[in-house]
Parts: sequence; C-alpha cells; structure tokens
Amino acid sequence: MQILDGKKTSLTIQEELTKKVKLLTSKGKKPPHLAAILVGDNGASRTYVNAKVKACQRIGFQSSLIELDNNVSEKVLLDEVRKLNTNSSVDGFIVQLPLPSHINENKVILSIDPNKDVDGFHPENIGKMTLGMPSFLPATPNGIMELLKRYDIPTEGKQTVVLGRSNIVGTPISILMSRKNYPGNSTVTLAHSRTGNLKQVCLNADILIVAIGIPQFITSEMIKPGAVVIDVGIHREEDSSKKNGFKLLGDVDFANASEKCSFITPVPGGVGPMTIASLLMNTYIANNGKY
Amino acid sequence: MQILDGKKTSLTIQEELTKKVKLLTSKGKKPPHLAAILVGDNGASRTYVNAKVKACQRIGFQSSLIELDNNVSEKVLLDEVRKLNTNSSVDGFIVQLPLPSHINENKVILSIDPNKDVDGFHPENIGKMTLGMPSFLPATPNGIMELLKRYDIPTEGKQTVVLGRSNIVGTPISILMSRKNYPGNSTVTLAHSRTGNLKQVCLNADILIVAIGIPQFITSEMIKPGAVVIDVGIHREEDSSKKNGFKLLGDVDFANASEKCSFITPVPGGVGPMTIASLLMNTYIANNGKY
Repeated sequence: MQILDGKKTSLTIQEELTKKVKLLTSKGKKPPHLAAILVGDNGASRTYVNAKVKACQRIGFQSSLIELDNNVSEKVLLDEVRKLNTNSSVDGFIVQLPLPSHINENKVILSIDPNKDVDGFHPENIGKMTLGMPSFLPATPNGIMELLKRYDIPTEGKQTVVLGRSNIVGTPISILMSRKNYPGNSTVTLAHSRTGNLKQVCLNADILIVAIGIPQFITSEMIKPGAVVIDVGIHREEDSSKKNGFKLLGDVDFANASEKCSFITPVPGGVGPMTIASLLMNTYIANNGKY
Repeated sequence: MQILDGKKTSLTIQEELTKKVKLLTSKGKKPPHLAAILVGDNGASRTYVNAKVKACQRIGFQSSLIELDNNVSEKVLLDEVRKLNTNSSVDGFIVQLPLPSHINENKVILSIDPNKDVDGFHPENIGKMTLGMPSFLPATPNGIMELLKRYDIPTEGKQTVVLGRSNIVGTPISILMSRKNYPGNSTVTLAHSRTGNLKQVCLNADILIVAIGIPQFITSEMIKPGAVVIDVGIHREEDSSKKNGFKLLGDVDFANASEKCSFITPVPGGVGPMTIASLLMNTYIANNGKY
C-alpha cells in the first residue's frame, strides 16, 4: 500500500507556482491576486480561508480577505461580489461556503463573473466542464484529478465508483472521471444515499472516491483488493490525548482499509491540501491564461 | 413486455400544449414562438427541423425557419443568432446540429442567450441542470425523463446504465437520472467506448439507456431479465421491400431484446417523438415561465 501524499504534492505545486510568480514579476507583470469573502464566524470556514490566504502569501500571490458580519444582508454581499467582478486588480475570488441561511447561496454563486470564479462553482463553469470545454474546474475534484495525475494512477477503462453526489465534489468528480482525458476515460458509477447494495457497488471499484460525509464509513470489506481509495471526508472527533483536544477522521476507516488498497489518501494530508493547490492553480490561470 | 410508446405520449403532450395555447390566446396573450436555424442541406437535419416546424403549426405555436447556405460564414451565422437573442417576439430558438466543419459549434452554442436556449445545450443550462437549479433541459434526455414519468417507471434505488457519453444525450441523461428527483435517484453508471466488460456492466442494469450509435448493438444476452430498455439510436438501412427504400434501426436489436425486457422503446416511435415533445414543452416554458 502506498500513500497518495496530498500534503507533499500540494507543496510541490506551490513551489512550481512560486517559480512561475517570480518569472512573471521579473518580466514586470503583476502577481496573481486572489480575493476571498468570508461571511460570519463559522470556525471551519475561517480555518479554510486562513489557509488559502497563507498559501497565497507563501507563494507570492496577492490576496485580499473581505470579512462580513453573520447578519449581513444578501444585497450587501451581492454588492461586494459585484465590486470584485469589476475590480481589475483581482484575478479571481471565492465566496467561502456555507453562507448563513438567510442568504440564497445559488443567487450568490450566479452573481460571480464566471471568468473570476476560481472555485469553479458557477453553472457556466460546471456546464463547460460537463461539455468538455476549457473552464475553471471545481477545486476539490480538480485537486483529486491532479493527485491521480502526479502519481500516474491508470484510470482508462477502470471502474470508478464515486460515493456521494454533492454539487461541489461527488457530481463533478463523477463527470470528470468519465471524460475523454487522462485522468478520466473510466467507467463511472455515482452512488449515494438511495443506492441499495452499496457494499457490492463499492466492491466493483478499481478506484473508489468517497465523499459521503460519514466518519469511517468505508471499511476493508467494502474494498476490492488493490483498489485506489480517495477519501474526501474530514470530521473532527474529540480526543483528549491530543494537544488541541481532537483528531481528524475521514470517510474511510484508514487503518482498517489501508491493508486492502494499492493507494490511499490519508486524512489529514490527502485531498484537503490538494483543494488549496487547485485553487491556487486556478488563480494563476485566471491571471495568466494557462498553467 | 410493454412498449414505451413515444409517439403516442408525444401526441398526448401536443394535445396538452394545444389546450394551453388556446387558453393563452383566449386571454389575449401571444402564442409561444419557436425559431430554428438550419445551415446547409443535410437531409437528416432538414427532416428533423421540418418535423419541429410542423409540430409547432399543429399545436398553434408560431414558428420561424431561417435557412442558411452550407458555406455561410461563421460571422453571418453568429449575427443571425444575435438577432434571435434580441428579437422579443421569439421565445426560444434552436440551431440545428451538426454544423458545417468550417463553423465552430461550441462558439455558436455559447452565443445563444441561455434564456432562449430551448435545446438546453448552452453550458449555463447544462451547469444549472448538473447543480439541480431550474433550467432548460436538453431535449432528448428530457424526453426520456418525461416518458419514464408518464409510464410510472420506478427509478429510485435502481441501477441505471447509460451507454454512450455524448454531450447531448449520454452525459446529461446520466446526470439527470442521479439527481434527487423523480425520475432519478438511481445509481447511475456511465459506460462508453473505453469500458472493458460492457456485457457485464449492461447485465447489471435495471434501466438500460442506449445511445452508443451502433445499429442493433444491444442483444438479449446483454439485458437483465425484466429490465427497462431505452433506445436512443436511429439508423437508416437500405431495404428494397420498403416503399421509401430503407428501414430504421435502433442501437438495440428490438426483436431479439424485447423478449427479455419489462418495457422497451421502439425505433421509430420511441425516443425520437419525445425529443420533439420536449422541445415544445421547453418553448412553452420560455414563453410562459412554467409548464
């Protein structure tokens, strides 16, 4: 069994980007600029946004953080989005999800200029991805694709099973893995809460991508020997033996499952860091046209 | 075995629409108006467009046909699209595909106003469909969904296999069948030319949707007993015993396969007429906001 090391791969990509930014600025061009809107005081959201801002600083990107109060009106948020749409110094920006329940998330996503939508959540980008046109790919699925690519995992003709059909992970990765590209060209099954014989479906998977949101749901008896397992889940569990009082768990029971796999992503240090790397790559593309 | 009669169902929908149009006009509102652009002299394209125009006339829709020469420039075609985008008397329009090879099809699709894109091919509509937002659904997949609905075919928790990953049929129907709706909520596998064990994959299907473009490709030994079979293919084969010199075949060997199925669509008279019904429903929605 080999670890698909997302942390290490993400750092490699960040080193690549650092060089690319130096090359840009040495030619007198401006560095890529990522802006983020953070609404409210959701702890996990703040952690994610801070990690993105820090990564920008590390690699020489400009970054801006716009913090809005939890009870900000939808109108004010939409105005902030419009300002970023028209601010030519900003190459790309994200609105950190989830938003407070009084705000219509779809309306906010639709208001983002697709050409600055480096999270790849706007329907126009999702549609282009589905149709195989160039677009900003959603960060987590794109991060998974990048990880498969950098570890040379064969995907063509393989049975890929995706567990979970969310708009930001399960559905788009199921589409990407079936496209006529590498990584892709695999026979993809999208399974979810209404799938009956989940164990049997999982046992067919040469590549199993788990984004079901239940801690340690996947155990070794659901894994085909030699399968590649990608764990998108991330859950906090109290653990008094840890300094910060908790440990992180994925959707896969890592210790138990890892015996059966050929490759597996750990949690933490797997898909999570790749999501950030992917966002940075998208921002570079927004600035420069290509990676 | 029971026939999923697309011809009859399409006529039922056209009768519904005839009544809806009468109701609109009785209130002094204008009837829905569908325009079509036909480029060149592809026989099949002309047949399809004519069938759409005739259906409009039958149900009281307005229709306009814009015919352009095979060697029309891309610029002139894009100008025609722009005119339809801004012509407030036109509710929806289609550009019949395929286009001549000197024209960039994607560029043309992207130039259509998504709010008038009753074929549902624009990335914004495909993206909204993928994300579960209201949108114009592509005509053929939507026609299949409508047929399943009107025959009360159970789909939740079923294994659906889609053969073929085209942008206009295979990919979108695979997405729709996995959404949290009826018809939908099934476990969808999207198979294609790179799928190795195609027979085994097909044998798992409770619902088999075939859009692979090979005449009579699916035979009874690839069908699970009791499966629902949807045949999207349509091919002409010479047949001197027929008055017009040819017969129509699907992607499924109907005579041989129909013994194994619980439900099956015939060719002709299955998915084809539902595609037109679906286009008319979309045009009605473009005019009136809802069906």
